[in-house]
Amino acid sequence: MRLPRLGEVLDLRPILTAAGTVLIVLGLFMTPPLVADLVIGHPDWQVFFVSAGITFFVGAALVLMNGGRESEQLSVRQGFLLTTMVWLVTAVFASIPFALSELDLTAADAFFEAMSGITTTGATTIIGLDYAPPGLLLWRAILQWLGGIGIIVMGIAILPMLNIGGMQLFRTESSDLSDKILPRAAQIASAIGMIYLALTLACTSAYWLAGMRLFDAVAHAMTTIATGGYSTYDASIGFFASPVIEWIAIVFMILGGIPFVLYIQAVRGNRRPLMHDVQVRWFLGILVCSSIVLTLWLYSEHRWGWHEGLRHAVFATVSIVTGTGYASTDYGLWGHLPIALVFFLMCVGGCTGSTTGGIKVFRLVVVYRIARVQAFRLIHPNAVFRSLYNNQPITDAMAVSVLAFLFLFAVTFSIIAVLLSWYGLDYLTAMSAALTALGNVGPGLGPEIGPAGNFADLPQGAKWILSAAMLLGRLELFTVLVLFAPMFWRA
Amino acid sequence: MRLPRLGEVLDLRPILTAAGTVLIVLGLFMTPPLVADLVIGHPDWQVFFVSAGITFFVGAALVLMNGGRESEQLSVRQGFLLTTMVWLVTAVFASIPFALSELDLTAADAFFEAMSGITTTGATTIIGLDYAPPGLLLWRAILQWLGGIGIIVMGIAILPMLNIGGMQLFRTESSDLSDKILPRAAQIASAIGMIYLALTLACTSAYWLAGMRLFDAVAHAMTTIATGGYSTYDASIGFFASPVIEWIAIVFMILGGIPFVLYIQAVRGNRRPLMHDVQVRWFLGILVCSSIVLTLWLYSEHRWGWHEGLRHAVFATVSIVTGTGYASTDYGLWGHLPIALVFFLMCVGGCTGSTTGGIKVFRLVVVYRIARVQAFRLIHPNAVFRSLYNNQPITDAMAVSVLAFLFLFAVTFSIIAVLLSWYGLDYLTAMSAALTALGNVGPGLGPEIGPAGNFADLPQGAKWILSAAMLLGRLELFTVLVLFAPMFWRA
Repeated sequence: MRLPRLGEVLDLRPILTAAGTVLIVLGLFMTPPLVADLVIGHPDWQVFFVSAGITFFVGAALVLMNGGRESEQLSVRQGFLLTTMVWLVTAVFASIPFALSELDLTAADAFFEAMSGITTTGATTIIGLDYAPPGLLLWRAILQWLGGIGIIVMGIAILPMLNIGGMQLFRTESSDLSDKILPRAAQIASAIGMIYLALTLACTSAYWLAGMRLFDAVAHAMTTIATGGYSTYDASIGFFASPVIEWIAIVFMILGGIPFVLYIQAVRGNRRPLMHDVQVRWFLGILVCSSIVLTLWLYSEHRWGWHEGLRHAVFATVSIVTGTGYASTDYGLWGHLPIALVFFLMCVGGCTGSTTGGIKVFRLVVVYRIARVQAFRLIHPNAVFRSLYNNQPITDAMAVSVLAFLFLFAVTFSIIAVLLSWYGLDYLTAMSAALTALGNVGPGLGPEIGPAGNFADLPQGAKWILSAAMLLGRLELFTVLVLFAPMFWRA
Repeated sequence: MRLPRLGEVLDLRPILTAAGTVLIVLGLFMTPPLVADLVIGHPDWQVFFVSAGITFFVGAALVLMNGGRESEQLSVRQGFLLTTMVWLVTAVFASIPFALSELDLTAADAFFEAMSGITTTGATTIIGLDYAPPGLLLWRAILQWLGGIGIIVMGIAILPMLNIGGMQLFRTESSDLSDKILPRAAQIASAIGMIYLALTLACTSAYWLAGMRLFDAVAHAMTTIATGGYSTYDASIGFFASPVIEWIAIVFMILGGIPFVLYIQAVRGNRRPLMHDVQVRWFLGILVCSSIVLTLWLYSEHRWGWHEGLRHAVFATVSIVTGTGYASTDYGLWGHLPIALVFFLMCVGGCTGSTTGGIKVFRLVVVYRIARVQAFRLIHPNAVFRSLYNNQPITDAMAVSVLAFLFLFAVTFSIIAVLLSWYGLDYLTAMSAALTALGNVGPGLGPEIGPAGNFADLPQGAKWILSAAMLLGRLELFTVLVLFAPMFWRA
């Protein structure tokens, strides 16, 4: 018996074409860092020249060799493989500049840094950002910016089609949108791109007016709106010691955590969906509650002034929940309650269809309503209850889909935490590293990887595990994990 | 408008009658400690005399005042209130001897100790067990023994009726049993009581033959088979420094973690269900896997001999997974991997219908099969897949029920951990205390509440929270939480 070749099971050409297209774009985006290094006369421009050449060449080759045709209709299996492959290939090629640069990172470090970038996680292995070449700092910002727009488009166009963890809830919503408000998916994507660009420019201007250098303003605006969290300084936003800059960051991190489709409608004059979306309300509610708790704690335990306490409390909450990972100060020193609270906030995440990671608020809403209906059913076994999400009924099948996602999240988290502890990470470091990577947040907890720390000193093996965790978290687990099911590869 | 009185909304008489009956039994069981203290001439016999009198009197009064009639048919709401009330009232009256004894515990400590006893958790606030009066030591053992048989009967008779977190899966199973094998529920209960007693006597004999004093053998047998974990020594089972005793404990802890209905069938000659039950197989599989990992770790990291390493690894695994909480040695010193592993093992639990706590293995089985079907559905959206549990189809409604339980477990755990950290417990202590209480395990992790530590020095507020967590965990969360739904109290 002859084993079937892969190409017979699954047509790989559209997948390789897509990967090639993304690499071409990635290669083009390596030119701004090249220019930045040239302008300042830093020899690392050669690194970007070589990296851009390789990336562009491989991308072009892939597109040409696979016919260059875009397929009209992808199968579901092709959708899964395409999504995972595109992100993986991007991370591999995005890591080339890190590996070749004067920082001389190991393979594990360079891949970690690139994956942390495109997944908008923001955990870093580089020490001494303040003295790093500008090209590299710009490259980190560009990666997060591309990763941010990439996940928004994917969250609207691909994940609902794949039914990942309750995302089918948003299928009708986005098709509603395309039917009634904008005619085609490409138009939604370009509208979202315009809004993304406009928000980035607004954020840049605000930072610049508040006193940042233009370069810092651009770099931070890109990582703020992408809720990524890469900074150009080791001290993160805290470097500027400016309350105004911190409040600007807070506003734009929140804006980055709201579903971007709602902005399209708001721009076209219909602000109702934005104001009444249940996900947005819960998201803001969580931010307010946590900020109040932390402010009271800072006031009562540490005698911080109301203004200062409120600012840092809101900043930490917003930075963690949106998965940005900026630090205005080291909240690891605030005591036991903040550490426990921050740990659990790490997995919440923002709204789906935004740049944030984590479990996502809509799943918490769905699951809260399921649990409430369960309680009602227990009390009145024969009555009929229905729960709604934004006026859509939550069917049992949808409930199972959301809940299975949460279960898989918990199991994946447990396995990663145990594996990390096997590499010698202590309990707090292993637990928080696993959660911060899966939730695409950025810093962990504890002296080593906390907001004042760095992932540089972790064992190489732990960095590979965390890179995998970031990809898993970004692609909502199932997208990657189904590829490991033997059934997936059967003809 | 007149508000309806509680009695009009819900007939409380059967509930108060049941509570009274349980108190009468509890009062009677206070006589063995009374006798033990009298025999040895310890003045604490008066404590048990007074406690037994109060408990018996209140119980008898409740039964008489509420007509003494047992109601034929409880409503679902009465079922919830009855279950929670009975356990709460038992803990309150069981705490009287602790409060009055020469140990002079605070109210929080005495209630914690009693709740930890009847929920078979095994966390203790008493330091100096080696010198404590025998009556009190026996009382602790009796509480766990009663709590163990109480939860088995509840898990067979009441929880499936209330549909708690997927327990409806076992409704058919136990009614099958009553239809075909034994005619009535009372007969099942008495058959289980006989098996429970027989296992306790077998365990006592084994301990005694292995060299324990008869008193220690009785006390440890009662807390082994109940997977409770109260010992008569601060050093727990490690006090005896006897491999034989440790292996005996391992065997009987495992026996205590298997569904007791299966024993009835096995005794009557049908061993098939016991050998082929999916829950039992997974339970043993988890024990084997974890034991292997820990043995290899102890060998490679600490150069322990194979025999010694295997024994302590198996002991720790079985003690944690069954929620017994005995310690043969301080596994808190084994390093980072064992700590992380033990943490996650804490929430697994044994089989439903046994004396163990935690999430329970059947829920893991159900949820694993749901997740697998989800993955299949993602790959083949139009195909129809069904998952089975012991040859029963897992419906979507059942899946939601199990998954909602897991979600509620995670949320309750998070809230308790944050509250504990607010009381000043550090991250490891707060996280492990929350999980060990919810999972009815016993010891936590870290120097303070780990296997070599004790809950005595925690803040009083933290002890009340943990007492509540133990009750929540024991009654599968929903049973207690529905009482807080305003809907529950509406006419």
